[in-house]
Amino acid sequence: MPEDICRGRKPVIDLLTKTPSRCAKLIIADNVRPPFLDELLDLARSVNVTWQVAKPEALDKISGGEKHQGVICRLTQGKTTGLDEFLKSLEGMASALVVVLDHIEDPHNLGAVIRSAEAGGASGVIYAKRRSAVPNDTVIKTSAGASLRVPLIPVANITRTIEALKAANFWTVGLDGKAEASLWSEELPGRCGLVVGAEGEGLSRLVSESCDLLRRIPIKQEGVSSLNASVAAALGIFEWSRSNLSSKGEILR
Amino acid sequence: MPEDICRGRKPVIDLLTKTPSRCAKLIIADNVRPPFLDELLDLARSVNVTWQVAKPEALDKISGGEKHQGVICRLTQGKTTGLDEFLKSLEGMASALVVVLDHIEDPHNLGAVIRSAEAGGASGVIYAKRRSAVPNDTVIKTSAGASLRVPLIPVANITRTIEALKAANFWTVGLDGKAEASLWSEELPGRCGLVVGAEGEGLSRLVSESCDLLRRIPIKQEGVSSLNASVAAALGIFEWSRSNLSSKGEILR
Repeated sequence: MPEDICRGRKPVIDLLTKTPSRCAKLIIADNVRPPFLDELLDLARSVNVTWQVAKPEALDKISGGEKHQGVICRLTQGKTTGLDEFLKSLEGMASALVVVLDHIEDPHNLGAVIRSAEAGGASGVIYAKRRSAVPNDTVIKTSAGASLRVPLIPVANITRTIEALKAANFWTVGLDGKAEASLWSEELPGRCGLVVGAEGEGLSRLVSESCDLLRRIPIKQEGVSSLNASVAAALGIFEWSRSNLSSKGEILR
Repeated sequence: MPEDICRGRKPVIDLLTKTPSRCAKLIIADNVRPPFLDELLDLARSVNVTWQVAKPEALDKISGGEKHQGVICRLTQGKTTGLDEFLKSLEGMASALVVVLDHIEDPHNLGAVIRSAEAGGASGVIYAKRRSAVPNDTVIKTSAGASLRVPLIPVANITRTIEALKAANFWTVGLDGKAEASLWSEELPGRCGLVVGAEGEGLSRLVSESCDLLRRIPIKQEGVSSLNASVAAALGIFEWSRSNLSSKGEILR
């Protein structure tokens, strides 16, 4: 699935409305009709995005066969931030949440985590370049566009990233079902690197050992029930938000 | 998608392990090989479930063309609980959480909510019979089997259901992005009906007006970011769990 397009009616409308700077060019199938066509063109005009009309088959080809509902937007190159630069941008902030993903494989889960990260006030999401989902067009869709707005930082090695976070005065907190302390046992630190494991397997041993703190989400019927990775991440993100943003009035408690 | 089958390797293994009483018959494609085949047959023998080998095409037909990875289990008829009977079973309990879904349309979201409901200790999930996703094989999969274990109660009308919950001494709490009070403003009541709205639209006006209390999840960058319905539900469910189960030692805080 291509990384430089946004496809589908709602995702493209969201893109034009919320992140027009990322729109390079709009491609519209010649069978798209009013009133949606008018809405789309008015919006494109208002944010100065050029468009082109094409056969539906041309759009099929661009999307690699994925559904597009007759509208695709080519994206400008996103600014990729390196880890050092990203951490530098957070220097001196008393509270900042960085979500670190230890090989999330499902793009739907990646999108869901990024969406929750934005809503919970995280400063960025770090993900592994290999053996992981990458922020492609499916992720734009499932993150409701958040993947175009939240800084996403690809890294080669999660354990080394945790060390870099520590060196930058972050507390690293791993979500781990086998941890002794629960997520509710005490407030999460202000400068917090929240490390979330892959679906099913959770944190790898090396990653889990690298974290300053480990926290488990208290669940009932242990052994039978389990949590989806994106739900676990959301509970961690909003726990940080509750501890840190609400006390500082950054969100209305 | 059929409601009376479970398909795919992990879902069927989970079913045989955790809910063998729901297995009527196992159907295995003739191209399934050891070691998975042995694992499957050993498990089926140990819980006394009969099996049959068939052509892969026969399994395609049973699954209605959905992926099955060579293994499908036919389910026994699930016990459907009526609303009255369900509420009667919760009489006298000081704390009980009932999740009420106001027309969730995406089966993935329905599955995710049921999974979180089980993990968070909810007593059951009420859903609308019409204009909603129903607990089918996709829901079994995305709920990681929880939809076979958590009581699911179909109802005709959500507003009337809220009245029935009130009559049964439940406080009904609607999750609503426009609510004045946040989810963190005070503890959720012990006997709690948590009402969650559809993707995008949220609670319908009538439903929202029927609830005793409305709570919003505090999010940053209001107007830009939003929450997935299943994430919103999970935050509500675990907020109840935090307020009620952990203080009673039912989960280890």
